[in-house]
Amino acid sequence: MGNRKKTAIIVAGGSGTRMQSAIPKQFMDLAGKPVLYHTITAFTTAYQDMEIVLVLPEQHISYANNLLQAFDNIPAITLVKGGETRFHSVKNGLQHIKGDAVVFVHDGVRPLVSPALVRTCYEAALSHGSAVPVIDMKDSIREVNGENNRAVDRGRFRIVQTPQTFVSSLLLPAFEQPYDPLFTDEATVVEHFGHFIHLVEGEEANLKITKPLDLLMAKAFLDLRG
Amino acid sequence: MGNRKKTAIIVAGGSGTRMQSAIPKQFMDLAGKPVLYHTITAFTTAYQDMEIVLVLPEQHISYANNLLQAFDNIPAITLVKGGETRFHSVKNGLQHIKGDAVVFVHDGVRPLVSPALVRTCYEAALSHGSAVPVIDMKDSIREVNGENNRAVDRGRFRIVQTPQTFVSSLLLPAFEQPYDPLFTDEATVVEHFGHFIHLVEGEEANLKITKPLDLLMAKAFLDLRG
Repeated sequence: MGNRKKTAIIVAGGSGTRMQSAIPKQFMDLAGKPVLYHTITAFTTAYQDMEIVLVLPEQHISYANNLLQAFDNIPAITLVKGGETRFHSVKNGLQHIKGDAVVFVHDGVRPLVSPALVRTCYEAALSHGSAVPVIDMKDSIREVNGENNRAVDRGRFRIVQTPQTFVSSLLLPAFEQPYDPLFTDEATVVEHFGHFIHLVEGEEANLKITKPLDLLMAKAFLDLRG
Repeated sequence: MGNRKKTAIIVAGGSGTRMQSAIPKQFMDLAGKPVLYHTITAFTTAYQDMEIVLVLPEQHISYANNLLQAFDNIPAITLVKGGETRFHSVKNGLQHIKGDAVVFVHDGVRPLVSPALVRTCYEAALSHGSAVPVIDMKDSIREVNGENNRAVDRGRFRIVQTPQTFVSSLLLPAFEQPYDPLFTDEATVVEHFGHFIHLVEGEEANLKITKPLDLLMAKAFLDLRG
């Protein structure tokens, strides 16, 4: 099952991304390397023939290129500029998919995805067309409806992660749909196109780094891995 | 509004709690003091006349007492043994409420609750009968139903924290209901009794320490507070 073409579209910001700190999260240092370095390496470690398409705000492209090329073992990366929304960013990345492939769409700021999870997603996407990693919800939740709210059973829900993984014959036509604000991730696009989403077990360490504390947490996870 | 009697019932394990590590999480060190010390201090800092009822597994009671008394500024604490479930543990704690009071029920392993949030809950419970802190959900979620699953709007949901705070005239009769497995927290008990739950804005730092990584995260939050 290991011989289908594989492309990881790593989304690291669209055209609307504003520089909120001097260094965006995907370029910040994590254990001596930029966050994006860890992210990319997880995919190339999973499969040596992995192709990388990195979607970035236009103003970050040359910076990212210089930064990443300073490290050994970084593969050739196709750099693509982001669009207005995540949907448009991913669609820009999909222009670089040629022929049948398994496509992984992954958040640039999830550097701790394991190569094992990448492989799980690959195998499941080949079998089911799609593979979306999810983890259980640990917190109690309440549903809010205007002024009312009520307890709901958290056991009914799963937290969604990436890489959201699809065979290109499903993903490419789904992205030809007109944009809808409900398209918050790739699963919603494919679901709206009429396809069932196959879930796989995600990883607690596969956190999304969106604030300084998350970076500390990612370092703690790396320390635990040793 | 600051002269109603105030009791914090701090729940640190029931009779069914097994020792999973040498030191249960509520006794582990956080910045030089046991987790429970931080938890208790947040409540006594919020209000000097706060009474503390600490609910513990029977086999931890003498250990907890010796540990806490080693620190200055620890108030008199009523130690109560836990029950079979959280409902039964809290019910044991409620036996110590005399007369009209505002009752805070708080997880022992949420040491970073701020005195400000305790005060917000007190004021809101006096006005509305109940006050339950919640925070927004940041992750995308999917709802699972047997073999099916579908995207849901996370904006409809809130993550529930503690202290779940109530006037005793509402909380005490609600806990006279027969136990129901749906009683996963105090809000579900009071809601089942027929009362509306008033939500207040919680705090991201008010995390629940359930695994070693959470303790590292709590340390990081304390460092950020300076």
